[in-house]
This record gives sequence, structure tokens and C-alpha cells, in this order.
Amino acid sequence: MGCITLTTDFGLHDGYAGVMRGVIWGIAPLARVADLSHQVGPQNILEGALILSRHGRFFPPGTIHIGVVDPGVGTPRRPIAARLGGQYFTGPDNGLCSLLLDEAEKAGGSVEIIHLDQPRYWLPEVSAVFHGRDIFAPVAAHLLNGVPLNKMGTPIEDPVRLHIPRPVREGNRRLARVLYIDIFGNIAANIRHEDLGEFTGFNLDISGVSVRRFVYAYGEAAPGELVALIGSSGYLEVAEVNGNASRRLGVAAGDPIVVILEYFKHQPDRQ
Amino acid sequence: MGCITLTTDFGLHDGYAGVMRGVIWGIAPLARVADLSHQVGPQNILEGALILSRHGRFFPPGTIHIGVVDPGVGTPRRPIAARLGGQYFTGPDNGLCSLLLDEAEKAGGSVEIIHLDQPRYWLPEVSAVFHGRDIFAPVAAHLLNGVPLNKMGTPIEDPVRLHIPRPVREGNRRLARVLYIDIFGNIAANIRHEDLGEFTGFNLDISGVSVRRFVYAYGEAAPGELVALIGSSGYLEVAEVNGNASRRLGVAAGDPIVVILEYFKHQPDRQ
Amino acid sequence: MGCITLTTDFGLHDGYAGVMRGVIWGIAPLARVADLSHQVGPQNILEGALILSRHGRFFPPGTIHIGVVDPGVGTPRRPIAARLGGQYFTGPDNGLCSLLLDEAEKAGGSVEIIHLDQPRYWLPEVSAVFHGRDIFAPVAAHLLNGVPLNKMGTPIEDPVRLHIPRPVREGNRRLARVLYIDIFGNIAANIRHEDLGEFTGFNLDISGVSVRRFVYAYGEAAPGELVALIGSSGYLEVAEVNGNASRRLGVAAGDPIVVILEYFKHQPDRQ
Repeated sequence: MGCITLTTDFGLHDGYAGVMRGVIWGIAPLARVADLSHQVGPQNILEGALILSRHGRFFPPGTIHIGVVDPGVGTPRRPIAARLGGQYFTGPDNGLCSLLLDEAEKAGGSVEIIHLDQPRYWLPEVSAVFHGRDIFAPVAAHLLNGVPLNKMGTPIEDPVRLHIPRPVREGNRRLARVLYIDIFGNIAANIRHEDLGEFTGFNLDISGVSVRRFVYAYGEAAPGELVALIGSSGYLEVAEVNGNASRRLGVAAGDPIVVILEYFKHQPDRQ
Repeated sequence: MGCITLTTDFGLHDGYAGVMRGVIWGIAPLARVADLSHQVGPQNILEGALILSRHGRFFPPGTIHIGVVDPGVGTPRRPIAARLGGQYFTGPDNGLCSLLLDEAEKAGGSVEIIHLDQPRYWLPEVSAVFHGRDIFAPVAAHLLNGVPLNKMGTPIEDPVRLHIPRPVREGNRRLARVLYIDIFGNIAANIRHEDLGEFTGFNLDISGVSVRRFVYAYGEAAPGELVALIGSSGYLEVAEVNGNASRRLGVAAGDPIVVILEYFKHQPDRQ
Repeated sequence: MGCITLTTDFGLHDGYAGVMRGVIWGIAPLARVADLSHQVGPQNILEGALILSRHGRFFPPGTIHIGVVDPGVGTPRRPIAARLGGQYFTGPDNGLCSLLLDEAEKAGGSVEIIHLDQPRYWLPEVSAVFHGRDIFAPVAAHLLNGVPLNKMGTPIEDPVRLHIPRPVREGNRRLARVLYIDIFGNIAANIRHEDLGEFTGFNLDISGVSVRRFVYAYGEAAPGELVALIGSSGYLEVAEVNGNASRRLGVAAGDPIVVILEYFKHQPDRQ
């Protein structure tokens, strides 16, 4: 029996996340359910999409990711389910799965997305404000039980997609943005490991501060030092060793980051 | 193998909730355990009872709900277990299960409540301060294993019951109270969907502000707008679209709410 | 199939705890996984060790405790796994398991500790900053599957050990320290139940306040009263009934506590 993950902005106070397990177990009694996060910022679809994209691929093939960051619940925004390569997603059609979708496409995996329009796979009563419980949890459980996607809805070709800003390249400079700040205050930029190449000199400007130390692991630098490194998801991060870089620098998602790189021999711009 | 849920005021910092799974799995190795909430306000029995009542019925028949909001632990307050229609509860006898009990009675389900007085179904050592671990977790696990209620204790007829204030009706006015505020700042009143009838005009006064917009779903109104709607548990709620109504209005549980309704044709008071 | 517990300083926002379940289930699909805490203070190894030690023994024999409070990740600090009596630990070699180790030794259980140096039991790619996901989760899952410790690494005899300060005894006085403060604000001292003996008089000084009331359970005293009692883990605690003693007294881990005891008849010092 497969796995289901939950990523929501429900918090942990009210039982909204817990009740989804009740609905799932009523339909798929042996489902294993993992919480990824219930502390996505309220209605912060991009943050939810990033969390799903950072962790999804570490789950076994066939895992079904439920995402519920859903400011449009009860309006005509479509409820969807999707096969994205070897894994599944169900949630609102608002971009929450679009990074998972990008990755599946990039990896050459086949993709199938449906508009959930078959209420017989939902709870008998569907509230206007809690589709996580009433639509997405039962659909995920039925998927786990082997109900094929195409029985639960109608194929669509135009899911909502988020557009993650890409860093702008100006010679040896990268004009980037703060993409994500984690609980440790580590600041991820929208720059991937593979965007950097084999540099010999490194300088990063953020919030008026220059970070020149690029390390492999936090422990290489002294407590309190600001360092840059590649985080566990492959993004360039700024961290304060044993501290909180985000609090120290006062930055927020979207703020600018400029990275200046030097290479051993002059490389032509690889646009 | 059945399900167990946990609802406590333990928070998530200290491992008090986690250790209950260890005790459960030592007795019922295949138990599936869901957290409803560990963030009930400290000693807030009513809040715990409301969370149990909002979500309990979405779990499969036979589910055992453990509730531990227990300011009287170690005093003569009774530890109890109960069959409430098709589900079970175990926890202190302080009203925590009384909304589940009301609903089971209202639905005509049979009810059986026992005072847990058979220590052979508990952990060998029972601390004076943590009956969740030492009494309720093992009792729930034994219940799941099929031990009948009447072997674990003595029937009682007088469980402690909470009295939820009902709204007062004065003509077309309902004098209500704030019952529950969730993580999104949505404010639930002690008015059920079925208390409203088919009204044609709606006005709600709360904290000196008048809310006239009654919607089906948040997305019908503009971000920042205050709206009234029926929440996912069937209570009348006040919400700020994409915002936090509770913070904006500065209200707390127990504060007054007045609802004035107009009906298409004058209806006689239905006391 | 056995149990795994997780104790980390990852918080619940970013999915770092959740993704470990994905890795575990990819290797040991039937593993039952319990969260002890993901809210250990950042890099607070002692706090993590205390949480593991308070709760570990309530889990079934064979349980594998994963601990990840790991400021040295990516540096030469060793990743380890250990059999400690009837249970297992895996995590960094920084003292996180040293209270579990002390207890296993004290109970006369056999102990086996290895330096994890066989990457074929890890994820194929190991990041420099997230060994919880890349090393400890897969190692725990392989242990659960029956891979013996000695295939996954090399025995060591010198694990890092924390030194918990012991109370100093001066006649009938005990000079102690605040060891742990829980979510309720209850203040645990580094004094065990068995350190107290059968006293007839009790006085505790903390933060300039004298606590003379020693109770069996919170409910014996009035709300707001400061009391001393033996907590659920066997430590002497100071609590405010229905309140928060730590906030009221403004104390932190490490602060001094002096306990003065009187005995029925004069007892010689039992050093």
C-alpha cells in the first residue's frame, strides 16, 4: 500500500490536517500518511510548491502528494489530480504542483492531468471551504486503491503554472532573488548549483552585506559567520553558522541577491 | 486494525505526544495513530471538546479518540472510557468528550461509559501527572485489541458534561457568542447552519462592526473583505478574505455576536 | 515491523522531518514512524538528549531512535549507530545519545556503537548539510530490515558523551540546576526522585522565590500556586498550577536551584 503526503497552510492547532487522515483511512485503511508541512504561509502557493518540489522525489514511486493551499476554494477554480512521472498530485489548480510538473517534464516523464469532476469519488457532502477533507483526501485514497485517474475526471492541458523568476546573467554577475527562507533562517536564492559552474572567486551581495566565504558545510566556518553554500535541495543559500541569517539581514522572499563569480580562465558568456 | 486519534494540550516540543505512540505500539503494534491537535489551549477543555466534535465523525467506525486536556490529573477526577455510537473515547472525566456524547445521543446511538478502575490495563507504573501516557494510551490500545469496555472499568451514568451556551432568540435577532477561533482567524459563533433557516436579509454585529455580506465561499468576496459564511463544521463563521478576522476585530472566545435576519415572509417565532 | 522515532531541531515548517519518512518508507515500507520532537532548540544537543532519554524507554524493544541535532554536519564529526540495551540509536556522534547510553550501561545492557562508514547503506547522493535524510534515515530503515550493525560501520569505543551536572550535596542542602523547561513552563531540576529520600520538610529556592509546597499532583494546590513535585520522568520539578512557572520566575536552563530537606530523624550524609 502506497504513501500519501500532506502539504497545507492549515497549521496544527485546529485538527484540519488530522481529519484528512480520518477520511483517507476510511477509504484506504492501510495508507501510510506523512506530513510534509502544515505551516505553509497562509495562501502562499509558491512556498507550498517549493516544499513539494524539494521533498517529493525522496518518496517512493507511486506516492500521492496532497497539496492544499487554496485561497480559491469554493470558486470555479478547478480541483485537479495529476500523474507527474512516477508520482501523483491532487489539490487545487492554482500552481501548487507546477514545480513538480516542471521537473517531471524536464525528466522526460509522462504527465497526465485531470479536472476532478466525478463527485462519486468525494465525500457525500462537500463543504464550500474545505476541499482538502471533502475532495482531495478521498481522491488520493481512491488513487491509492487503484482507481485510475481517468475515471475520476476529465483530462486538461492547461493547468495553472507558477513562473519562478530565473536569475538574470550579466557577464560574471547573477542578479537573483530570495526564493525561500527556512526555519533556521537559511536564505535560498533562485540559483541552482549547476548555474554556478566551476568558479574560483565568489562574492554575494545581499541587503547591503557582502558574503565572500563559500563553504561545503556549515561547520567549516566559525559560529556567527555568514557563509554561502549549496543547500540540501541544490539551491545556493546564505546561512549564519549556528545563527539565523534571515533575521540578521532582515530579508524576505523576493529580495534581490547579486552574485559575482570569477572563473579560472575567462569563460565566454554561456547564455 | 483500527485508528486512534490524539487531542491534547501537550504542544509538540517535549515529546509528550510522541511517547503515547510508543506506549500504544507496545500493546497494539499495528495501530494507526493520527494527531488531531496537540495545541489545544492549556487546560482549555471546551476547545478540546470542540476539536473532537468537529472532526471525530470523519474517522472510520471503531476509531478511538484519546483526549488529554487534564488539569485535574492526579486528583480524584475519574479516568473514563466510552463507546459513543460507533466510536470510542478515553480521557479524563471533565467534559472533554461531552460534545461527542451529545451527538451520539442525538443520533440515537447507544452509549456506554465506564470509570477506568482496572490498573492491569495501564502501564505498570502510573505517574501522578501524565495519565495520557500511563492510562489512556494503554487503554486505547487494549480497546483496539478487542478488550471489551466492561472489563476495564465500572459503568457510570453521570459523566461531567460541558454546557455550550445556545444562542438566545429575540424575534429576528440571535444573541450569540464566539465559540471558537481557528488558525486562520476565522471566528465561529455558537449558531448552527440549521438555526438560520432560509433568510433573505443578513446583518451580523461583532466588536462594533457590522458584517452584511453572507457568502458561500471565501473567494466570492474581495481580499480584505469581512464576510459571514457557514464553515466546514456547520457553524456560522466570520472571516476576512485572505486575512485574519480575529486579529482585525480583536475578539476572543465568549465575546458577543448579534445576528439579525430577515425572512422572505414574516415567520412566527419558532421557539 | 519495528518502530522508528525522530528527534530533531528541524521545526515543522520546511518539510525536513517529513522527507525523512519518505526515505525510510522507500527502504522499509512498513516502518511505523513516530515524531518525538522537531522543536529541539537549534543545535541544543543536551535538550535533544534529554527528550530521547525521557521517552525512549516507553517504545517497544527494537525501536530505532533517530536523533538529528547536528551543528557539525559536513565536518569530520562521525555519523554513528548504536545498540543500547534493547533499543537502537542513529545520528551524529556529538552526545545526543549519551543519556540513552548511560541508562543502558546502568541497566547492565550490552552496548555496541559503530562509526557509519559504509556508504552503500546511505542515499546515493549525500549532501553536506542534511545527513538526517541522506545517512541516518536510510541506516535506520536498513536496521529495521535486519541489516546488522557491524555491516554498516566500524566499532568505536569512544563516543562523545555529555556531562550532565549532578547536584552538589552540602548537608541537607542540594545545590542543583535547571535542567529542562517544558511547554507548560514546568521547570525540571537535575535532581532525581531517588536523590531526595524520605524527607519530612521541604524548601526550594529558585530565582529569589521560596517554594515550600511539595505535592503529588498539580490538582492538590490552588491555581496560581507554585509547587514542587516529581514530574513524569522522575525529575524534581517546579510548576505553577494552571500557569507557567518558567515565565513567572524568569528562569532558563542552567540557572541555580537550592533545595533544603529535613528528615524525620537526623540522617548521616549519604555521599
